[in-house]
Amino acid sequence: MSLQPRKEPVIYVVEPFGGSVRRHMPSLPLVHWDDAAVTRGDGIFESLLVRDGKAANFRRHAERFAQSARALGLPEPPMHKWEEATQLAIADFYGAATSGQALPEAKCTWTYTRGRASTGVPSAWVVVQSIPEDVLKQRENGVKVMSTPRLWQVAEELPAKTLNYAATMATLRLARERGFDDVIFTDPETGLVLEGATSTVVAVKGSKIRTPAGKGILPGTTQAALFEHATEQGFRCKAKELTVEDLQGADSVWLVSSVRTAVRVTRLDDVKLKAPGNAEEIRGLIDASLAR
Amino acid sequence: MSLQPRKEPVIYVVEPFGGSVRRHMPSLPLVHWDDAAVTRGDGIFESLLVRDGKAANFRRHAERFAQSARALGLPEPPMHKWEEATQLAIADFYGAATSGQALPEAKCTWTYTRGRASTGVPSAWVVVQSIPEDVLKQRENGVKVMSTPRLWQVAEELPAKTLNYAATMATLRLARERGFDDVIFTDPETGLVLEGATSTVVAVKGSKIRTPAGKGILPGTTQAALFEHATEQGFRCKAKELTVEDLQGADSVWLVSSVRTAVRVTRLDDVKLKAPGNAEEIRGLIDASLAR
Repeated sequence: MSLQPRKEPVIYVVEPFGGSVRRHMPSLPLVHWDDAAVTRGDGIFESLLVRDGKAANFRRHAERFAQSARALGLPEPPMHKWEEATQLAIADFYGAATSGQALPEAKCTWTYTRGRASTGVPSAWVVVQSIPEDVLKQRENGVKVMSTPRLWQVAEELPAKTLNYAATMATLRLARERGFDDVIFTDPETGLVLEGATSTVVAVKGSKIRTPAGKGILPGTTQAALFEHATEQGFRCKAKELTVEDLQGADSVWLVSSVRTAVRVTRLDDVKLKAPGNAEEIRGLIDASLAR
Repeated sequence: MSLQPRKEPVIYVVEPFGGSVRRHMPSLPLVHWDDAAVTRGDGIFESLLVRDGKAANFRRHAERFAQSARALGLPEPPMHKWEEATQLAIADFYGAATSGQALPEAKCTWTYTRGRASTGVPSAWVVVQSIPEDVLKQRENGVKVMSTPRLWQVAEELPAKTLNYAATMATLRLARERGFDDVIFTDPETGLVLEGATSTVVAVKGSKIRTPAGKGILPGTTQAALFEHATEQGFRCKAKELTVEDLQGADSVWLVSSVRTAVRVTRLDDVKLKAPGNAEEIRGLIDASLAR
């Protein structure tokens, strides 16, 4: 847990076709009025955890990012340039002063948009910033979660991590008004569990680890890392159709995502989910899977 | 049709709680990296036609804008400030030189976002710019339209004009690859016609004017103005469930929106829709309704 003072975010702008990268002052505006990100949410992003001064699970994020770009018909992102900008931003974020110390974690975000209408050139940048306080609290305390049918369908041909989160955010605001911290979306027709607002759902029962199978679920990078590692550790990991009742009957339920890593669901609708004996083991599995 | 040289866009930033408005250079970045418009498309907009130096159909746009803000839980926009910024931007756009001349039309856009994560203060601005060339061409030549099921459902509790257009834009790109100019979305379950990508569908048959009725259709400001005026002129105007075949059997089909005003559908899927005798009458109705 970070007790260091909060640091200023660091931004590096990436030339989308592989030119130079350059630092941008976070206090100054970055995006033009006619950028497709602003005018229609037309772009993609990835959030990564920075641990021990490195972007964790880099390869899976890079692959999903490139897939999202393809799904939106954006030019293929030069991932070596994104990696370079990420490394520069991380180095600037921590600075020379902290070398040799244990580094606090950070959050890294890649954003890639269709760019300005007036130029047609995509916009691209990397941000490294402190882990938000609420993330630290949720890791510690878990989250109370409301299940709710997702009233919009995610287009099957567009399994991308786009900037279109307004409807999700509206649902989160509704959940918070009702005393919950997060939501788990269900399929409005079948009632089956889909995913969290910004996370993958994972349920543990004995030595079985499950994540929901079905359409309209973004493949989770952290869940994929967890499954690979946990399988090696003797757990039986599988994507499977799951109901809300399945979750309520599990030993433990987790919302898994890159920056929050794993937060335990302490309540799902009106059912309290008590802490399992092996909570630290599960959390350790996820931490270890991110260190690979 | 504008033969004037293209002018630079004019931007006025609006203080969201009703303070001063100020001009912003369009060549400079406007939006910060942590603005909700950029990070998750969390904001609303309205596009208005500027005709004879005035924002046409202002009252309906102002009402829909305020409704969109309420749907997203944004602070109520002070519409007199938006009106002031709109007037200033229009005056700057045309400048003193053109007074006395017939003014070319322009496009005005209001954007209102949840603002920066670091400040929590909404971002708000007005842009006035030349009518895009492709709009002028489409008014003249009409559009070839592909009907397609909308594979995402618009949340009923969120009938707002949000910045979340990435999926719509992906569908438009697909249509263009197939030789079409625009799309008309249908309900994937019932097959009934919903709306255009950024427009309201209107069909004319004899003295009857129809627009699709149903869920998931954003109320059109231009269609509302048309219906009010056309009813006074003796047309029978009604929102009604419509199929693609209904459209293909109409005298004429139009995509109606504020800046394009009305573009005629010249082909709907594999059916050519020939120009009706009264095309100019219909266009005149829409023009007259916007002048009120």
